[in-house]
Amino acid sequence: MSNEFNGVEGFEERVADSFARQAALASIGASLTSVQAGRVEILLPHNEAFTQQHGFMNAGILSTVIDSACGYAAYSLMPPEAAVLTVEFKVNLLRPAAGKSFTAVGLVKKAGRTLTVTDGELYSDTDKLIANMSATMMTILERTGLQG
Amino acid sequence: MSNEFNGVEGFEERVADSFARQAALASIGASLTSVQAGRVEILLPHNEAFTQQHGFMNAGILSTVIDSACGYAAYSLMPPEAAVLTVEFKVNLLRPAAGKSFTAVGLVKKAGRTLTVTDGELYSDTDKLIANMSATMMTILERTGLQG
Amino acid sequence: MSNEFNGVEGFEERVADSFARQAALASIGASLTSVQAGRVEILLPHNEAFTQQHGFMNAGILSTVIDSACGYAAYSLMPPEAAVLTVEFKVNLLRPAAGKSFTAVGLVKKAGRTLTVTDGELYSDTDKLIANMSATMMTILERTGLQG
Amino acid sequence: MSNEFNGVEGFEERVADSFARQAALASIGASLTSVQAGRVEILLPHNEAFTQQHGFMNAGILSTVIDSACGYAAYSLMPPEAAVLTVEFKVNLLRPAAGKSFTAVGLVKKAGRTLTVTDGELYSDTDKLIANMSATMMTILERTGLQG
Repeated sequence: MSNEFNGVEGFEERVADSFARQAALASIGASLTSVQAGRVEILLPHNEAFTQQHGFMNAGILSTVIDSACGYAAYSLMPPEAAVLTVEFKVNLLRPAAGKSFTAVGLVKKAGRTLTVTDGELYSDTDKLIANMSATMMTILERTGLQG
Repeated sequence: MSNEFNGVEGFEERVADSFARQAALASIGASLTSVQAGRVEILLPHNEAFTQQHGFMNAGILSTVIDSACGYAAYSLMPPEAAVLTVEFKVNLLRPAAGKSFTAVGLVKKAGRTLTVTDGELYSDTDKLIANMSATMMTILERTGLQG
Repeated sequence: MSNEFNGVEGFEERVADSFARQAALASIGASLTSVQAGRVEILLPHNEAFTQQHGFMNAGILSTVIDSACGYAAYSLMPPEAAVLTVEFKVNLLRPAAGKSFTAVGLVKKAGRTLTVTDGELYSDTDKLIANMSATMMTILERTGLQG
Repeated sequence: MSNEFNGVEGFEERVADSFARQAALASIGASLTSVQAGRVEILLPHNEAFTQQHGFMNAGILSTVIDSACGYAAYSLMPPEAAVLTVEFKVNLLRPAAGKSFTAVGLVKKAGRTLTVTDGELYSDTDKLIANMSATMMTILERTGLQG
């Protein structure tokens, strides 16, 4: 999937830099595990502090990592001076998030000048598909002070 | 909107109990500020620990509180023995989440025996609409150990 | 709702012109019944030729009119030289589409330079809410030959 | 993808029967081209009668065929006495629908007792991805007179 895309030189570092500036991702314990052009993976260990009322990881917290994987997959194809913003996403929760850890995969389906459409999936450590996402990302250029 | 619905006796307490069992909501600093039949409000103060790369509150974290407001709006109309699960939600991010605090409002649009469709909105403390959500919730009955 | 928006002079005519050029809308029997700045209504009579397997109007056909109401609500606020395209929409089907006719209402929630976020609803002639939609529309400028 | 699912005996005929009862699909010129357990394809030739204002196929009409492909992919795994209803779908329009014909592919991602989550894609005859969909389908049992 990712092979059809060409990242702009230095994209791995730009993705890692932007990821590192997201306090939310550090706070929930997420880490960046793979960055390719148009494809990004994020790992989220199970964390008691972010569970819902039945003891599974909260759906919104799961969405946070899938959205980030999708956003950075899109960002990997953007010009160096761009910033990325989420326009919208839709997530289906397929199974309770039972597992020791979860891997979110974000993939670019169509990269446009302004909008990039992505798909995301979240798997448990036992390879169960927990959730899938469809998300639209926007390339922001020439907005003072906004980068990454 | 909420006036057309009748909550089952004790729904305010059941919503508060379930909310209190969500570690994720406590961890991000969210609190329950209003519970009516078919309408729930949640307050989220700005929190540096949950910002994205530009310093605004992370979209997934915002989704967490809107999803919860929608879920509890649906739960307020369910039988006492039921549990509520999110089937899916879609969120549009309309403006950067600038503000000292944010209020998520969840409203039931259609309550069914199995599925309940809800709308959610997130406003800043200066009354700007930051995000809106469309979410489907499911009533879970007779599943051992699952309640709230 | 619509009062907060200002349409650009002549928007009613531009919406009507574009609507008239949509063969699909004529083919399913839809007509434009109200055009305000940021709010558009479309009427769809029940039509046996566009039913699904249980005799109700097909969900995709209903989506066609709600999407058009949303798209023209957005278009009513765009510059005269712009074209409007649907980026994405999500629709929840709340009840079987039983009725003699259906009214789709599209409302702008947030109008931006490039993207406009809208909400849509579809009511039966007996005032039942049949479906609701959340849709993102895009302003297209400077693309040769694309208008309306 | 489809190999992981087992259809209930006779599913190909039940899908074809239900498809044949959808007047909407005949009216827009759609035909069923492949039925496997958990995977269905529908062909839609370009049709001037269902274009939008720029001469491309209307987004709602495209959604109609993708929704049907998703719905029948879900239905192929349901018990013979069941009926299928669309709960919700979200569609992203990635490119103008230019082409002589379009193929919608619906795939089951997760089949549950009550809800089935599906993904859909629409390709042009030149193999361009025109649109993708995420849809939730519901198994309806024991509702008098509702089948297929």
